Amino acid sequence: MSNIAAAIITIGDELLIGQTIDTNSAWIAQRLNAMGIDVLRRVAVGDDRNAITDALNSELASASLIIITGGLGPTADDITKPLLNEYFGGNMVVNEAVLEHLKNLFIKRHRPFLERNLKQAEVPDNCIVLHNQFGTAPGMWFNKEDKVVISLPGVPFEMASIMEQEALPRLKQTFFSDALLHRSIVTAGEGESFIAEAIQDIEEALPAHIKLAYLPGAGMVKLRLTGRGSDADKLVAELEVQQQAIASRLGNIVFALEDIPLQEIIGKWLTANKATLGLAESCTGGYISHHITQLAGASNYFNGGIVCYQDELKEKILGVKRETLEQYDAVSEQTVTEMVQGALRVLHVDYAFAITGLLGPASPQDKSPVGTIWMAVADKTTVKTNVFHFRYDRERNKEMAVSMGMLMILKFLNQSKPITPNP
Amino acid sequence: MSNIAAAIITIGDELLIGQTIDTNSAWIAQRLNAMGIDVLRRVAVGDDRNAITDALNSELASASLIIITGGLGPTADDITKPLLNEYFGGNMVVNEAVLEHLKNLFIKRHRPFLERNLKQAEVPDNCIVLHNQFGTAPGMWFNKEDKVVISLPGVPFEMASIMEQEALPRLKQTFFSDALLHRSIVTAGEGESFIAEAIQDIEEALPAHIKLAYLPGAGMVKLRLTGRGSDADKLVAELEVQQQAIASRLGNIVFALEDIPLQEIIGKWLTANKATLGLAESCTGGYISHHITQLAGASNYFNGGIVCYQDELKEKILGVKRETLEQYDAVSEQTVTEMVQGALRVLHVDYAFAITGLLGPASPQDKSPVGTIWMAVADKTTVKTNVFHFRYDRERNKEMAVSMGMLMILKFLNQSKPITPNP
Repeated sequence: MSNIAAAIITIGDELLIGQTIDTNSAWIAQRLNAMGIDVLRRVAVGDDRNAITDALNSELASASLIIITGGLGPTADDITKPLLNEYFGGNMVVNEAVLEHLKNLFIKRHRPFLERNLKQAEVPDNCIVLHNQFGTAPGMWFNKEDKVVISLPGVPFEMASIMEQEALPRLKQTFFSDALLHRSIVTAGEGESFIAEAIQDIEEALPAHIKLAYLPGAGMVKLRLTGRGSDADKLVAELEVQQQAIASRLGNIVFALEDIPLQEIIGKWLTANKATLGLAESCTGGYISHHITQLAGASNYFNGGIVCYQDELKEKILGVKRETLEQYDAVSEQTVTEMVQGALRVLHVDYAFAITGLLGPASPQDKSPVGTIWMAVADKTTVKTNVFHFRYDRERNKEMAVSMGMLMILKFLNQSKPITPNP
Repeated sequence: MSNIAAAIITIGDELLIGQTIDTNSAWIAQRLNAMGIDVLRRVAVGDDRNAITDALNSELASASLIIITGGLGPTADDITKPLLNEYFGGNMVVNEAVLEHLKNLFIKRHRPFLERNLKQAEVPDNCIVLHNQFGTAPGMWFNKEDKVVISLPGVPFEMASIMEQEALPRLKQTFFSDALLHRSIVTAGEGESFIAEAIQDIEEALPAHIKLAYLPGAGMVKLRLTGRGSDADKLVAELEVQQQAIASRLGNIVFALEDIPLQEIIGKWLTANKATLGLAESCTGGYISHHITQLAGASNYFNGGIVCYQDELKEKILGVKRETLEQYDAVSEQTVTEMVQGALRVLHVDYAFAITGLLGPASPQDKSPVGTIWMAVADKTTVKTNVFHFRYDRERNKEMAVSMGMLMILKFLNQSKPITPNP
C-alpha cells in the first residue's frame, strides 16, 4: 500500500531574495510525515501569477495533496487568493463568519476596521474555510477531482494553528495510509564515516522497508531509522530491534535513544534526580541559558545564570580573583574554574557550568587564538574542565560551544547514571 | 536587459521529513540577489535519483544557473555526486588536490583515514573543483551549454565558505547583469493594513522598475523597495527619494532606514554615545543577552546580564525586596522596577533593561494570565515600564518579548536623539 504523496508550495518574494528563512515547510513536513503522508517536493516561488500557476500545475501532476503557504496578507503584493479562486473556478464572496472574526480581531487590537480590510473577509465560494484563530487571513481547502489543495497564511504560528486545529484532522479523514515510524539514536564524539564503518554490517542487513539516515549536526550525528508497513505494532518492534543493535554497537558515543534536544535530555535527568543547574556564560552571552529555558517547566531545575561578558562582572559577581584574570587571562582554565565555583555558590545550585572563550573575529587584545573556548562543569566535590579550539566563524563557533557545553554537562550528569545501553 | 535567472535545488530526505530547516537557500538567495541574479524557484527533493534528475531537468529548462546543496557526505544515503557525474557524462577520478586536503583534515582531527574516505576524493573529470576549506566534500562546477550547475555540500558553513571564496567570484566573471538594489524602512507599532493605507498614493505612483514589499515580523513590519536598472547610481538616487518619502509619511513608527537587526541599531547607538547596557532577564532566560552579543564588538557596550529565573536570584543578586515579590508577585510592575534598578547597580551600566513574565503554558501557581510580560528600561534618573499581553504559544511569546524588549530599549535611547527622519 503506497503512501499519500504531497508537495509543499511556499509563496513569497521574500523567500527568493533570502530575507525570510522558511521554517513552515519543515514544520508542515513533520506533521504530514507523522500521519504517513510523504512530502516528495517542496517548491518556493515568488509573488507572481505565472510562477504560482506553473507550480500548482506541475506539483498537481504528481502529488495528491498540495499545501500552499504565504501570499495571503492584506497588502498589494498578495495575489494568491484571487489566483486560487480563478484556478478552481469559484467566485469571491464575503464570508460572514470570517467577517465577524475580523471585526472582533480589530476591536481586540484597538485598530480601525478599514475599507481594504473588508477584502480579507472575501473567500472563493468553492472552498472550505479553515478558521484562523490568531490572524486575519483564513485558510482555504479546495477539492480538485480526488486531490486536495490547502492554502494557508505564511505567518508561522497562524499557519501552525490552522494546520493543528482544522487541516490535519480533516486530512486524517480524507486520506488513509500505511504507518510510517521513526526511531533515533543520538551520538556525539565521532563523525559519520566512523559510525558508518562501525555499523556497516547492521546497515547492510536492514530489511527493505527500514531505511537508515545520517543527520550530522554541531558535534553530533543523529541516526534515524525509518520504517513503513501496514502493521504498526510489528513495525515498532522491528525498528526497536535495529535501534538497540546500533546503539549497543556504538556504546558510549550514544547519548539518547530519542530525537530530543540536548536541553531536554538534561532537563529529564535533573528532574528525575531532583537536582538544580546554574550557568556562568561569558562568550556564549546567555545562549545556553536560552536553550535550557526553552522547555516549559525548566524552572523546576534551572535557577538562572550570570552573563559575565565583561571581566569586571566575573570578578564582582562570581568572585573570580583579579590576579587570576591578570596572570592567566579571562580565557583560561584557571578563570573558568573560578567561574564555575562562583556560579555554584552564587546561584545556589547542585550543578554549575561555566564557559569563557573567543568566538571571533580576532581582535588586537586577544591573548588566545580565536576559537579557543574553556568550559567547566562542577558539583560540590568535583570540577571538570575542557578546552575546545573551533575554527569556524563567530556564529558557528557559538552554536558549537552551546552544543559541546550541553554535551559536557550531560556527560558529567551521566557519570553516576549512564544511559548508554549495555552491549 | 534582463537579469540572470537562477534556481536552487536542495537535496536531502531530512528536508522532506522536516528534521532540518533549510537556511542555505535563504543565504544563497541573498548572495545571488546582491549580484543581480534572480532566484526564480527553490526546490527541495529527497535523496532519490529520479527526483534529483527530474528537478535538474525541469529547473534547467527555465534557469541559466542552478545551485545544488546537499547530498555529498560520505555515507550511504548520499547519491548526488555519482548522479551528477553521469548527468554531465563524466568519469569519476581521484583528484590529487582533494585527496591531500582530505588527508590533512583527518590528521588535524586525529581521525584515521578509512578506505571509504578515499571515495570522497573522487570527482567527475568534467567539473571544476571548488575547494572546501572547512570540510571533506568539495564543491563542483559544471558547464552545460551556456548554463552553469554548481553542487555544494549541505553543511551551512562549508557551503557558505565555498560560495564566498570560489563560486561567487567565478559567477561574477561568468554572468553579466543589471544592478538590482534594495532600500528598507523598518517600522514598529502599526500593522500592514495601516501602513498600506497611509502610503497608498506613494505606492501607486512608484515607477515600474521599483517595487515595494511588506515583510511583517514579530511586532514589526519591514518595507522593502527593490529597483532594477542599468545605471546603479541613478537607481540609488531614485530608491532613496522613495525611501525618504515613505519614511517621512510614516513618521515616528520608523525605527531604521536599513534592514539590520534591532540589536545592531541598539549597538550603533550605544557605540556612538559611548554608553553601556546591562540586562536582567527572567522569562526570556538569556535570549535577549544572546541577541545583543550576536554582534562582534558587543563587549564595547554590553557589560552582561543576570538570568534570574528563580525569585531567589532576583532577591539575592538584584536586590528585589522579598516583600515586593510576596505582595505584588514576581510578574508585576513593582518587581520589574526593582529588577531594573538592581541591574543598573550590579552590572554597573548606563542603561539597564529588565523583563519578567509568564510565557506559558499555564501552571497552577501563576498569578497573572499567561502571556503577561512586564518590562522596564532605565538610566540613572528615569525608569520606564510597560506591560504586554501576548496570546501565542511559549516560543512565539518569547520571540515577541525579545522583539518588544529591544524596541523598548531603542525607544528609550532614541528619546534624546531621534532617528526618525523629519517630514
